Amino acid sequence: MKEIDIRPASEADFDAMWPIFQEILATGDKFPFEDGSREACHAYWFGPAAKTFVAVLNGGRLLAMYKLVQNQAGRGAHVASASYMVSPAAQGVGVGKLLGRHSLEQARRDGFLAMQFNYVVSTNVGAVVLWKKLGFEVAGTLPKAYRHQKLGYVDAYVMYRLLDDPNEWRQ
Amino acid sequence: MKEIDIRPASEADFDAMWPIFQEILATGDKFPFEDGSREACHAYWFGPAAKTFVAVLNGGRLLAMYKLVQNQAGRGAHVASASYMVSPAAQGVGVGKLLGRHSLEQARRDGFLAMQFNYVVSTNVGAVVLWKKLGFEVAGTLPKAYRHQKLGYVDAYVMYRLLDDPNEWRQ
Repeated sequence: MKEIDIRPASEADFDAMWPIFQEILATGDKFPFEDGSREACHAYWFGPAAKTFVAVLNGGRLLAMYKLVQNQAGRGAHVASASYMVSPAAQGVGVGKLLGRHSLEQARRDGFLAMQFNYVVSTNVGAVVLWKKLGFEVAGTLPKAYRHQKLGYVDAYVMYRLLDDPNEWRQ
Repeated sequence: MKEIDIRPASEADFDAMWPIFQEILATGDKFPFEDGSREACHAYWFGPAAKTFVAVLNGGRLLAMYKLVQNQAGRGAHVASASYMVSPAAQGVGVGKLLGRHSLEQARRDGFLAMQFNYVVSTNVGAVVLWKKLGFEVAGTLPKAYRHQKLGYVDAYVMYRLLDDPNEWRQ
């Protein structure tokens, strides 16, 4: 029986995180930054302000990771943001949904009142559909804001949800 | 005759920028961060990625400043963002509009294809009206994303415009 556990990331996870980071960036269709180096990966996942979690299969293979951050300082510090990467080899089996729910629970537990994604590539349909399922709305469309590796300039979405009704993501 | 000149900021401007920064933050109705220290001010206006300009009256008094940045790295690096502060003593006389136009021209000259404001406080009506005049649209509304000093949680806007038609801000 397969079991997926989500737990805080540690330095020991880094060697398994880096190849996923590289694979995801190489697609050129989800994230803005293009530098897939070890240093860039480490700064991204273990930077000072990030709270990072990993999804692990049967206590072994690392499938995915996400990080939770404040989207703004001070007067905007009650809004969280998060970023997710699922290993291409583990896509399509619901890991993203597990991470999404976990991050919403975590954000709520940490006292955040809302969650905002600043930059969801509109052609990343899997992500857009998943976030809608978890109660997010497209708060705004940013015309041609993403230079997609294959499609050229495409729109990006700002997605947002308040965290006042957890039933919306728990079902 | 009064003349307002906009030019690149230098370290020599810093002593005049700091009090404006402090005054603006003290209002608690425009910016998220609340730390008005010299260090925070310097990091904000002279950080590595910022291109900062000041508006100066008759070659003397510093009235306002703005900075231009990339809104995202890599695949989002063609979208600029900017941030503006006008001295409370110089508000209502059109300095913001001068800065806004200057920043749009500068962004276009620097090769950006669009300009995005990530976090315009909805109750900052002066700013919202000005950006609309300069061709920006409210791309999205972020419910309760700003903790206003007097009003509590209020919405923030994401505002956006493509830079393909400069006539829209030059008139």
